Amino acid sequence: MSERRGYRSKAPTPALERLATYFAALSDLKRSHPETISSADIEERTGINAAQFRKDLSYFGEFGRPGIGYITDELQSRIARILNIEKIQPVLLVGTGNLGSALMGYPALRVGNFQIVAAFDNNRQKIGRRLWNLTVQDIADLTNANNDLHAKIAIITVPAASAQDVAEQLIQAGIRTILNFAPTALRLPPDVMVRNVDFMQELAVLSFHLPDNENH
Amino acid sequence: MSERRGYRSKAPTPALERLATYFAALSDLKRSHPETISSADIEERTGINAAQFRKDLSYFGEFGRPGIGYITDELQSRIARILNIEKIQPVLLVGTGNLGSALMGYPALRVGNFQIVAAFDNNRQKIGRRLWNLTVQDIADLTNANNDLHAKIAIITVPAASAQDVAEQLIQAGIRTILNFAPTALRLPPDVMVRNVDFMQELAVLSFHLPDNENH
Repeated sequence: MSERRGYRSKAPTPALERLATYFAALSDLKRSHPETISSADIEERTGINAAQFRKDLSYFGEFGRPGIGYITDELQSRIARILNIEKIQPVLLVGTGNLGSALMGYPALRVGNFQIVAAFDNNRQKIGRRLWNLTVQDIADLTNANNDLHAKIAIITVPAASAQDVAEQLIQAGIRTILNFAPTALRLPPDVMVRNVDFMQELAVLSFHLPDNENH
Repeated sequence: MSERRGYRSKAPTPALERLATYFAALSDLKRSHPETISSADIEERTGINAAQFRKDLSYFGEFGRPGIGYITDELQSRIARILNIEKIQPVLLVGTGNLGSALMGYPALRVGNFQIVAAFDNNRQKIGRRLWNLTVQDIADLTNANNDLHAKIAIITVPAASAQDVAEQLIQAGIRTILNFAPTALRLPPDVMVRNVDFMQELAVLSFHLPDNENH
């Protein structure tokens, strides 16, 4: 049951997204299934069908034992290793407005595998204030701060007009992957990955699909 | 320049997402471009190239005038009509924890085309409390409340374990489209559309792609 490197890098992004879902589900299911677990158990919990689950795992190696299913702990730690979340991943956050501070307080981002370890702002009213166990730092100190923290992941929760500038500062400070909540497309070097969350855009897509939309 | 109905319904979802981006960009660009605007202006603002912009519009009809470009107001209102955001769309929110109340305070969800008009919770400590100009209501009053509000869109910001139940209550209350922040797959009737925002999953995908991930 070795990890096949070349094979793994071809995993499509939706399979990775589902892997994250399986990992989260296993954290819950460990209580009721401390020894072994089946693909049917995963399906019941996540809504993702068992055949899809088995196919997703197959991108990453061989899992499971005939007649047994999966050893719960082993399944969870192998997925953690694949997703690179065995060790706690420190995360920086920039922009401590409503959304940024809500994320800072989100339980999974305080005690889980991803932890927001520092928060930055350019607003004098925010800098130096205590928010969720962290003291908001001046964005100007970003590179110095990350020299100690070695975070590679950052969350951007600043207004659209500031996001590009903030992204560039983060990259200079050593960040290589960005979760962007600002409603703008970031222009980044090819070795930096970004995932965008634009819920206003999601609402617009939903609105288009409303049944009484006569323009549809 | 008529809207072609059959043609429009074939627009791929990424084109709809970009339409929402163009609409948001036009709200800003109206100040500097009160009369006409070009696809190059849109490209500069959004990062989406001009040829893609023109192609996206082509799903929905004919736009633009040779030698002129686009009439700014007209372009914006036609996009609003397509996305069904000409009138204010009332939105319900369920789950007034950190994330839910951050969304309630998000400026675009207070004064834009989508407005959170009511917020619900099952937590006695929250019900009756004033949050961002709204009084948090008991989820048990959902159907009654929506009989007056006629909202078709709802946002779910409750824990994963409660989300399915909340979704079913929302559908009974007349909701037809859901923006789901709970990290779980909702099982919904085929005529109800859901868009999922799972930022923990986004972080896991980013983590997988970190350059020092030796499992990659």
